[in-house]
Amino acid sequence: MPRVVVDVTLKSEILDPQGQAILSALTRLGYIGVSGVRQGKHFELDVDEGVDESMVARIAETLLANPVIEDFTLHWQ
Amino acid sequence: MPRVVVDVTLKSEILDPQGQAILSALTRLGYIGVSGVRQGKHFELDVDEGVDESMVARIAETLLANPVIEDFTLHWQ
Amino acid sequence: MPRVVVDVTLKSEILDPQGQAILSALTRLGYIGVSGVRQGKHFELDVDEGVDESMVARIAETLLANPVIEDFTLHWQ
Amino acid sequence: MPRVVVDVTLKSEILDPQGQAILSALTRLGYIGVSGVRQGKHFELDVDEGVDESMVARIAETLLANPVIEDFTLHWQ
Repeated sequence: MPRVVVDVTLKSEILDPQGQAILSALTRLGYIGVSGVRQGKHFELDVDEGVDESMVARIAETLLANPVIEDFTLHWQ
Repeated sequence: MPRVVVDVTLKSEILDPQGQAILSALTRLGYIGVSGVRQGKHFELDVDEGVDESMVARIAETLLANPVIEDFTLHWQ
Repeated sequence: MPRVVVDVTLKSEILDPQGQAILSALTRLGYIGVSGVRQGKHFELDVDEGVDESMVARIAETLLANPVIEDFTLHWQ
Repeated sequence: MPRVVVDVTLKSEILDPQGQAILSALTRLGYIGVSGVRQGKHFELDVDEGVDESMVARIAETLLANPVIEDFTLHWQ
């Protein structure tokens, strides 16, 4: 069965305090070499053969992401 | 600058009520052809050239996922 | 040890698609009498006696919430 | 209209890596006096007068929390 992944992230101009918290924690714990962290949501949908990208995009815009503050990407796995 | 993506999902044997809620909502809203939804977390890390997969895996196990209940995958973008 | 709870929600004028998904699922599953659902984040902090509300508010604004899109409330438990 | 709040947290014996990340970040940023952070989910439901606690508990167990790994509390606001 096909699986499609939808990843939702805050738009890049919107501050992500929890990503910032992870970045601070990395520094504190001695991890060197990470300069940015953004956190988002990840969805995996098992779909029938007939489901196409435009339908998944409509689902993402309606139920998974708020297009005003978030971007999403989708890819088939 | 390289970017690495870490996706964290509940292990498949652990019930995901919010994925279930999205699946019910899809049915209610008339979307046909989706048979399963799982929700997880998505992280994007901007890293230096010297950061390798094993270091990202250690970060994921320590700060991003709980290995007892969650799986993670990572890929370079 | 005192515990303080910080609850973070999207500002009321910002659409919450995942709250909407839960609301649709409730209807689909036959639950009657719920007219709105909003989803947010919940944090529990164990703090020393000397930690006061203004310090917790600074923590919330910096690490837990994005004041542009989210509101937070705090209360002692 | 009555509002009921459901807060969902990982059971106390289950490691919460993102709470740990916030705690590390607090130390790194110079905040003194916080000894523990747990992260959870927060839901606000607007309900009719006829909705009682047992119905909200059923909703929480079905759609908001996974009772195997999470606890929830509910209170009227």
